[in-house]
Amino acid sequence: MTNKYIWFDIGYTLLYQQREQVYVQYLKEQKIEMPFEKIEEAYHYADKLFMREYPGVLGKQSSFFYHWYLGIVNHYLELAFDLESQNRFIQKGIQETKPYWLPFSFTKDVLHKLRQEGYRLGIISNWDESGRQLLDYHNLTDYFDNIIISCEVGVEKPSKAIFEKAFKQGNTTNEESIYIGDNYYDDVVGGGKVGLKTYLINRFRDQGIEEIQYPYIIESINELPSLLKEENVYF
Amino acid sequence: MTNKYIWFDIGYTLLYQQREQVYVQYLKEQKIEMPFEKIEEAYHYADKLFMREYPGVLGKQSSFFYHWYLGIVNHYLELAFDLESQNRFIQKGIQETKPYWLPFSFTKDVLHKLRQEGYRLGIISNWDESGRQLLDYHNLTDYFDNIIISCEVGVEKPSKAIFEKAFKQGNTTNEESIYIGDNYYDDVVGGGKVGLKTYLINRFRDQGIEEIQYPYIIESINELPSLLKEENVYF
Repeated sequence: MTNKYIWFDIGYTLLYQQREQVYVQYLKEQKIEMPFEKIEEAYHYADKLFMREYPGVLGKQSSFFYHWYLGIVNHYLELAFDLESQNRFIQKGIQETKPYWLPFSFTKDVLHKLRQEGYRLGIISNWDESGRQLLDYHNLTDYFDNIIISCEVGVEKPSKAIFEKAFKQGNTTNEESIYIGDNYYDDVVGGGKVGLKTYLINRFRDQGIEEIQYPYIIESINELPSLLKEENVYF
Repeated sequence: MTNKYIWFDIGYTLLYQQREQVYVQYLKEQKIEMPFEKIEEAYHYADKLFMREYPGVLGKQSSFFYHWYLGIVNHYLELAFDLESQNRFIQKGIQETKPYWLPFSFTKDVLHKLRQEGYRLGIISNWDESGRQLLDYHNLTDYFDNIIISCEVGVEKPSKAIFEKAFKQGNTTNEESIYIGDNYYDDVVGGGKVGLKTYLINRFRDQGIEEIQYPYIIESINELPSLLKEENVYF
């Protein structure tokens, strides 16, 4: 048994959106075919752009930014559409695609393994009321000792306060904890403010974050169990 | 009399949009007050961002990009609105504001002076069918010996071809010509491809183009007549 605590972000750390599938449906309506990987890459680049240039925007209600986000995804794909009708189609698709957020194929296995090895696990996430429902829906809630969601605690990453609340609830410290997230600015910079070591997930290795000089990048949480076994890597 | 030829871009070189006024109307509906200069600056930054990061997009039909553009203007002003209803309001305001494009207060005076001093004058512009109507509406057409508009010639800046067509129609050369425009990437880079010396207009001096190392920046065409008199500045 160990006192080590591993905290996770939710979106693109444990779960992913079926957004590319919805976009493909829209392209189909426009009689356009495109490789799925290209669409994934465009969304990935749009995410990274928003994280870097427009912090906090992706956490707002979608009517405030989604046309804008789509404009950028389209642009990466060298496409242009009427943004009003495209956004309507896509929002409807998002509503109808249930569940819209899915666990990665390896998410449960990894959480299971880490618990078996005695790590305590937690969530620190910027999310609305649906955060807890999502974890319940996918039977993930029981893997976690503490779940800290911004809308419930009234503070969000990259503020120090959300991490401090997590340490308090988890009865742990920055030195006993590591954090895993996909947003350099919220997760690595935010975590850094409280001395928290953070592993940055980037599914496409350094693509989209070429400007970031950071040594701790992994492609997915699937790398965690073996990484944790390598001595001195984490703690 | 001289053989020297001065070519102009149209938007934000000779004419400007009443866009900030329309945005202010929208803010009024939302019961928000904001200094006009701050709004001008946000639009200026959005222009520069699009010119640099999304070349060609501002020339597309507005339904393809305007929500996106507004999202960025809002973001600079630390505001967030439902983009669909905001865009509807703003497009209606643009339609109803006639004329939506106006000459700068000094535009006619400067063109008049330059003609008096014997310069030949022309237009090289990326614009749709409304380009020629706009010049007619404001009684500007007669100042120009040649008017080259992208939609009429089927090529656009920064392509070499539009400048070559202009030289041919104007019976002039890159060495006898200078160009004045506000888009570094279309005008300076594009003009550079045919050895055309270009003065870059930036109303806020280097604000929004801090990354550009370019010596020939003016705030408006109002500086031209005296600049042209300083020997060796232009030719």
